Amino acid sequence: MADKEVFDFLIVGAGCAGASGAMYATRLNLKAVMVAELPGGLITTTHLVENWPGIKSITGPDLASSLVDHALSFGVPLKNERVTEIVNANLNPPEGSQSGFIVKTAGNEYLAKTVLIATGTKHRKLGAPGEKEFENKGVSYCALCDGAFYKGKVVCVVGGGDSAAKEALVLSEHASKVYIIVRRDVLRAEPVNADRVKANGKIEVLFNTQIEEILGSDKVEKIHLKGGNEMAMDGVFMAIGHDALSALAGPLGVDLNDKKEIKINRRAETNVPGVYAAGDVTDTEFKQAITGSAEAVTAAFFAFDYIGKNKVVF
Amino acid sequence: MADKEVFDFLIVGAGCAGASGAMYATRLNLKAVMVAELPGGLITTTHLVENWPGIKSITGPDLASSLVDHALSFGVPLKNERVTEIVNANLNPPEGSQSGFIVKTAGNEYLAKTVLIATGTKHRKLGAPGEKEFENKGVSYCALCDGAFYKGKVVCVVGGGDSAAKEALVLSEHASKVYIIVRRDVLRAEPVNADRVKANGKIEVLFNTQIEEILGSDKVEKIHLKGGNEMAMDGVFMAIGHDALSALAGPLGVDLNDKKEIKINRRAETNVPGVYAAGDVTDTEFKQAITGSAEAVTAAFFAFDYIGKNKVVF
Repeated sequence: MADKEVFDFLIVGAGCAGASGAMYATRLNLKAVMVAELPGGLITTTHLVENWPGIKSITGPDLASSLVDHALSFGVPLKNERVTEIVNANLNPPEGSQSGFIVKTAGNEYLAKTVLIATGTKHRKLGAPGEKEFENKGVSYCALCDGAFYKGKVVCVVGGGDSAAKEALVLSEHASKVYIIVRRDVLRAEPVNADRVKANGKIEVLFNTQIEEILGSDKVEKIHLKGGNEMAMDGVFMAIGHDALSALAGPLGVDLNDKKEIKINRRAETNVPGVYAAGDVTDTEFKQAITGSAEAVTAAFFAFDYIGKNKVVF
Repeated sequence: MADKEVFDFLIVGAGCAGASGAMYATRLNLKAVMVAELPGGLITTTHLVENWPGIKSITGPDLASSLVDHALSFGVPLKNERVTEIVNANLNPPEGSQSGFIVKTAGNEYLAKTVLIATGTKHRKLGAPGEKEFENKGVSYCALCDGAFYKGKVVCVVGGGDSAAKEALVLSEHASKVYIIVRRDVLRAEPVNADRVKANGKIEVLFNTQIEEILGSDKVEKIHLKGGNEMAMDGVFMAIGHDALSALAGPLGVDLNDKKEIKINRRAETNVPGVYAAGDVTDTEFKQAITGSAEAVTAAFFAFDYIGKNKVVF
């Protein structure tokens, strides 16, 4: 493999974290590349971001673009491919050296001295009958993406956290009525968003309520609730959390916590030398765009430090 | 003290970290206040910032303004005062409760349930004879602030790190000649900045060199080097590092490391309940504007969490 291009720092993902790490890598003269299925990441499905420090209000897609463009303009290439596997390049590195990595996609293999896993999360499924059948036919995971299809309609958001509140607020700009269906007796939203929900005449919160089944013919028409009630419904938006996209980490021997999030330290190092993680895929407790970005910046620095101190072989 | 205003989250400092934490506090409906001697913080002395994710190039003062304005526009007041002391408000809080804090300035006392120390750092002094005598008469700690006074003159920067390289680059826009005086045999600058120094015809790096004394009449005229050499010099810029402004932390019982930086965990918590720290004053190894900002955002969240879980008494 001696004649194949070797990257210093390969970033899996190009969301807020990945793009920030890529940009910083250029400040350290690292040869970096982003390999990402969804450039911009999950924040591209967010309506308005008001809490990126220094920017009072920006759309999710615009924030993502500014971060990705920063990395691109500083010379980091972006490969729009899904990484399927990461393996050690050398199973028996000579004493005193470390193995590099082979990062595989459907059509390519990349060699990298260090890897940053910034793959983020995916929306969690409710698992109710009808959910899969009606996906994109009334069942959605993104109010920003699909909300406009429900002008004047009745919709519900399933979930009891801040995401549910924000999704409901977005939907209230289109729908005639928005229910938030909360399993427990409390809506744990950011207080500003909880206040906005309360003040919004279109939104009604139903506590201690769960969906039993989603029903319709060629699209969603109603929901059955546990306990027997039925509600006419044109759209069902799921906001019940996210699952870490950490499947690449396990086979490398990277430690995960019980939520399958990648365990990192304050250097954004995992337990495997040369493998870093940042952003929503990690075990950071309070995950925000800005915290993921900072983790990736930190990872770039410690990858730079690692490459300076270690001989990496393939 | 029952009738005195109580803040949920008092931020000492309004630099990148402090302002970001203040802004986030409003997202959590915390009653916050910034108390800061130098609004904007030390980044206001930086010429160009190219590594704040999402912004390809911005001046230090403009970046600082955007962060402070974000907090102000979301309703956090800024008190332009120097905090002199922070003490526990109640030395014997009842079982199951926590003491709040009294934050003192020259003219005021503020009550706060939680405190974020985001006081940053100050420029380190060289300690050479003449340094103090000629401060602001040829001795400076900020190329951006004072560089323009040296148009066509010969200046030197003392230091061997990235700050020294950046200070020299700024000075090269004004001075006719810029020496970087490096004690050891290597310039440990960010590689992009090291390259820029090399490519800059006005800048010359002197390795294994130390200033013995700074001399002049009413302003700096020359420097004596260790070993006996003498150089004519119009300005001497110090870039030999920073000292954490952590003096407020010690008396509160907050743990410091051997560099007198405040020890924090991934929640930006110190060892003292209700006291958080973020930014350059902490023991974070790779300190950048973005990492300090993320730490302060994290602190705001865990302060919110703490206030929800604890009864705080005064």
